[in-house]
Amino acid sequence: MSDIKKYTSIDLKDTIITSPFWEERIKLMAEKVIPYQWDALNDNIAGAEPSHAIENIRIAAGESKEPFHGMLFQDSDVAKWIEAASYSLVHYPNQELENKIDEVIRLIGRAQQEDGYLNTYYTVVCPEKRWTNFAFGHELYCAGHLIEAAVAHFNATGKKSLLDILCRYADHIDSVMGPEENKMKVYCGHEEIELALVRLYHTTKEARYLKLAEYFIDERGEQPCFLENEATYGSDLNKSRWSRLDYHQAHKPVREQTEAEGHAVRAMYLYTAMADISLETGDKTLKAALEKLYHNTRQKRMYITGGLGSQGHAERFTFDYDLPNDTAYTETCAGIGFVFWMQRMLLLDINSKYADDMERVLYNGILSGISLDGTRYFYVNPLEVLPEAVEKRFDFDHVKAQRVQWFGCACCPPNIARLISSIGQYIYTVGDDTIYTQLYIGGESQINLKDKKVSLIQTTNYPWEGHVKIQVNTEIKETLTLALRIPDWCGLYQVSINGNDSTDLLYRENGYVLIKKIWAEEEIIEIEFDMPVQLIQANPKVRENAGKIAITRGPLVYCIEETDNGSNLSALSIALDNKFNIEYDKNLLGGAVSIKLDGYRIDEKVLGDELYRSAVDSDAPAQIVAVPYSMWGNRDSGEMSVWIRKKQ
Amino acid sequence: MSDIKKYTSIDLKDTIITSPFWEERIKLMAEKVIPYQWDALNDNIAGAEPSHAIENIRIAAGESKEPFHGMLFQDSDVAKWIEAASYSLVHYPNQELENKIDEVIRLIGRAQQEDGYLNTYYTVVCPEKRWTNFAFGHELYCAGHLIEAAVAHFNATGKKSLLDILCRYADHIDSVMGPEENKMKVYCGHEEIELALVRLYHTTKEARYLKLAEYFIDERGEQPCFLENEATYGSDLNKSRWSRLDYHQAHKPVREQTEAEGHAVRAMYLYTAMADISLETGDKTLKAALEKLYHNTRQKRMYITGGLGSQGHAERFTFDYDLPNDTAYTETCAGIGFVFWMQRMLLLDINSKYADDMERVLYNGILSGISLDGTRYFYVNPLEVLPEAVEKRFDFDHVKAQRVQWFGCACCPPNIARLISSIGQYIYTVGDDTIYTQLYIGGESQINLKDKKVSLIQTTNYPWEGHVKIQVNTEIKETLTLALRIPDWCGLYQVSINGNDSTDLLYRENGYVLIKKIWAEEEIIEIEFDMPVQLIQANPKVRENAGKIAITRGPLVYCIEETDNGSNLSALSIALDNKFNIEYDKNLLGGAVSIKLDGYRIDEKVLGDELYRSAVDSDAPAQIVAVPYSMWGNRDSGEMSVWIRKKQ
Repeated sequence: MSDIKKYTSIDLKDTIITSPFWEERIKLMAEKVIPYQWDALNDNIAGAEPSHAIENIRIAAGESKEPFHGMLFQDSDVAKWIEAASYSLVHYPNQELENKIDEVIRLIGRAQQEDGYLNTYYTVVCPEKRWTNFAFGHELYCAGHLIEAAVAHFNATGKKSLLDILCRYADHIDSVMGPEENKMKVYCGHEEIELALVRLYHTTKEARYLKLAEYFIDERGEQPCFLENEATYGSDLNKSRWSRLDYHQAHKPVREQTEAEGHAVRAMYLYTAMADISLETGDKTLKAALEKLYHNTRQKRMYITGGLGSQGHAERFTFDYDLPNDTAYTETCAGIGFVFWMQRMLLLDINSKYADDMERVLYNGILSGISLDGTRYFYVNPLEVLPEAVEKRFDFDHVKAQRVQWFGCACCPPNIARLISSIGQYIYTVGDDTIYTQLYIGGESQINLKDKKVSLIQTTNYPWEGHVKIQVNTEIKETLTLALRIPDWCGLYQVSINGNDSTDLLYRENGYVLIKKIWAEEEIIEIEFDMPVQLIQANPKVRENAGKIAITRGPLVYCIEETDNGSNLSALSIALDNKFNIEYDKNLLGGAVSIKLDGYRIDEKVLGDELYRSAVDSDAPAQIVAVPYSMWGNRDSGEMSVWIRKKQ
Repeated sequence: MSDIKKYTSIDLKDTIITSPFWEERIKLMAEKVIPYQWDALNDNIAGAEPSHAIENIRIAAGESKEPFHGMLFQDSDVAKWIEAASYSLVHYPNQELENKIDEVIRLIGRAQQEDGYLNTYYTVVCPEKRWTNFAFGHELYCAGHLIEAAVAHFNATGKKSLLDILCRYADHIDSVMGPEENKMKVYCGHEEIELALVRLYHTTKEARYLKLAEYFIDERGEQPCFLENEATYGSDLNKSRWSRLDYHQAHKPVREQTEAEGHAVRAMYLYTAMADISLETGDKTLKAALEKLYHNTRQKRMYITGGLGSQGHAERFTFDYDLPNDTAYTETCAGIGFVFWMQRMLLLDINSKYADDMERVLYNGILSGISLDGTRYFYVNPLEVLPEAVEKRFDFDHVKAQRVQWFGCACCPPNIARLISSIGQYIYTVGDDTIYTQLYIGGESQINLKDKKVSLIQTTNYPWEGHVKIQVNTEIKETLTLALRIPDWCGLYQVSINGNDSTDLLYRENGYVLIKKIWAEEEIIEIEFDMPVQLIQANPKVRENAGKIAITRGPLVYCIEETDNGSNLSALSIALDNKFNIEYDKNLLGGAVSIKLDGYRIDEKVLGDELYRSAVDSDAPAQIVAVPYSMWGNRDSGEMSVWIRKKQ
């Protein structure tokens, strides 16, 4: 074993969220989104793309004669829904929902094959092709999501119904794949099984599951690559560039990878699992690779919203500093995977930068994926939208100018539901004698440390305001450190202990302010983060953003929308020396802070109708209204842009 | 008949080019490019994509047993080569070349079918499918190019060998297609046959050819559309958006079309033929449609280089003001078609704007398509290139960062050869008693007017200098007007007659200065166009160019290249109040005027390695060197950009 220090996340059960911003969203998941998604999976949403996911399980169980319909990984939508629904049960008990889950679990059980195999597509459509298409077949991917659902369901309800089914399936997988002689030397083209097996190991303590996850990680990228010998691989390769091995992060052994490559969701799930394995086994070579991969992602391949993936084709990373705003992919699922990865990095190596990026993508590139009413979704989260281009240009084929009810490939909607429903577990990280505050989300948490209880009551109106109060109560009578993350966007902050501005107990380490003390009863920590409007520029190597600035406040990236600013947003510019009018309006977008500032608009009247003419300065003053990026597209359809030209 | 006034172009034979800029290029075509392209068509260029075009004819003639190879319209490459070679013979007699042409014509004759049909793909690969795929089969397209070759060959050599072959083919086509009962009611998915049939009519005076061209024009876009009933159409339609009827300009009757739609080359060849028919028949409804189509093209869908087509997929027009620089298509052939169309518009309705655009695309968007040594070609002529994006991004799949030796689909190289070799015919337009100077290209022209001779000797170093001298000699002793086009880029000019600055004889009409007089012997007209560097902006509705400027001088659009300005061109900006250092350097790019100016570069050192940070002004002075756009990519490979950020 190693000297990798182990930190832990808190359990979902341990925190009741009370933050206005988040309570509303979690409640929306429980009361509206999870029922809505159940209807979608059952094809009961008028006008939405059909899912057929539940019907497919019926077919596999021999209880329906319909043909299979949908993606070959349609099962994973059901799995993610069960996971989300299970999380929601933790704080929103709902017998009707629990019954529905039980019912679908029984159905899944009936669809499971005698040997434990469980996949509706291969069972119904081509049972003879089981385990022949690892590159694109998604069998292990679906297995992974079902395992995650089983773990969540067990943790939420204590019921082993789904867990038993998935243990049987995992045992089956373990019996046919692995390093041992006579087993298949394989891994899945879409990572997910690896992190799921670690979760299954955590729940069952069965070491075989961890070993199998380790094996999948170690095998990945070894040469010669079995994927290239798959019957279907060559044909896919000929059809399209995106079958190259780097698409699957299989171009090199994972420990030799230094740049975030290929399909962005796949990459995030891989990196998450690599961190999980490193945490369990103390493998420092994995940790070292992850640090390089993080550096490359953070410094060269991440959108300001935390979105990942710069190209629609192959939904993938491209090259350093290639971050086009309008043709971005920035899939909601990649953002969610980024949260998973950052959570694991915090466990491997406490550093606020990981939580900064978790917060960045959570408040921007993920929340943008769901409408405020919870019934419409973005798969792709571009930073600039011109509806006419989205409609007419072929290279915008992957982009939508408005959220939709459902997708034929619906990975994102249940993914966002499971993340939001389980957001409580991302708030704190716990070390030997330190509790780290990673996210400022109000709530009551009961944390076990040294077999004693620590109660933290966090109160805040974050992200709209920068004031956070934490009330500490603990049975621990030794030194205990409360570490408060100072977000990267924050230049000025003030900490008080029991109402006294006090610096003698504070020091700063790895991006946290540490309050190290023996705690009396009901001590109150308050922190005031100065939360001014900031104008941000990108590295000048990002050619799409040269001469442009983005508006942020606190963790929120702002954008301008046509509905506030008129059409042709590219005609607008703003100067650096600006004053900002900040206002919380409860009627705006369900309650939001808007930012008004002075800007300029190219005066078209001065210029006439010509397409080209002698250049003149014709900027006229124009007021600009910016709203949080994640909330865009909840009013009228129209243009949107995060980056705005800088008037110099 | 109508009151559409008929103007005529001059014949290629009538002008010997002496302008340094153009003489060099025409000579290059005769001495190097045409022999090179012959080698390419015969697969004798090491490292180039194979053509197989000549071999295909041998196969069709039964003289080779190889399989057919290449595009189904490969014949058109040979046709355009014969056309180019024939033009070059006019002023560069070359017995060896003439023998080669005769040889290939005899081969074509042997490949012609008994009924006159002539197409190697359908003859060799699928004779049973003749005339079944008008949408994508390109049979009439190839026929059109062969007809153009036959006309050019006859005009250049007086030989009827190819003309007879193509008259037989045209007769065959006329016997199976047309408005009469029992004939096919069709037209070609790729326009070309229409303008070719008009040329054949001009040469043979056979009215049936004109009628057939008229029929094809009139039938196009009528509903219901036969294309949609073709066996292959639906499948193509399912595979890709680009099979929509507007791709073929078949979405509406041509007289109802108001916006430049679909595949840009197809559109240009259609509009050219519509103008031809309007000229011949006096059909004012066609002329009216063309004026709308021109307005839409010129005001909303044309790149500053004259390039046309904003999207790689379907090589097509998209929507108004959608003119992305890096993913532009701007096919060389579309630029050439634009010249054809503008030449015809000048015959329909003398107005300098048409010649302005002819000049714009000729000097910029067309000449960029060929390397200075004549052996490398661009198919796509983008206005901004980042080699790494071209290499790695899927949505740049159509772009190349460097010219190549040949293409699998090689429509552009022989097309540019035929245009440059025949440029002499675009210099003047002749009316009843007026000669219009459309292009400033030095040369000696003998023009027939009222059955009398007019000799014009034009001397100029255009486009490098704005001075033009025209020596007039004529037998005509009545009033004759010489009309000098005042280019749209020129704000100041001075005309002198026999050395005297004289304005009493001048007036301006439709963009021309008219010198109306009875001419003595050897009169000298001189015109001095002020040719300053100009900074141009695009209409602010062109979102890609908001806040950017382009550098032009005279007819030339300039660009900046990495080789002169370092990498990351997007970090550069220039101010409007600038001074320019203009220098003709005979060692630069085979002789060119470069423009040096003061600019700025974002200082990366000030900013550090972060991907996002608080915005600051960190522009540092940087000298900028611009070179003519058409000459870019003739030195080291690297970035290029036409549009540069404006420093305000």
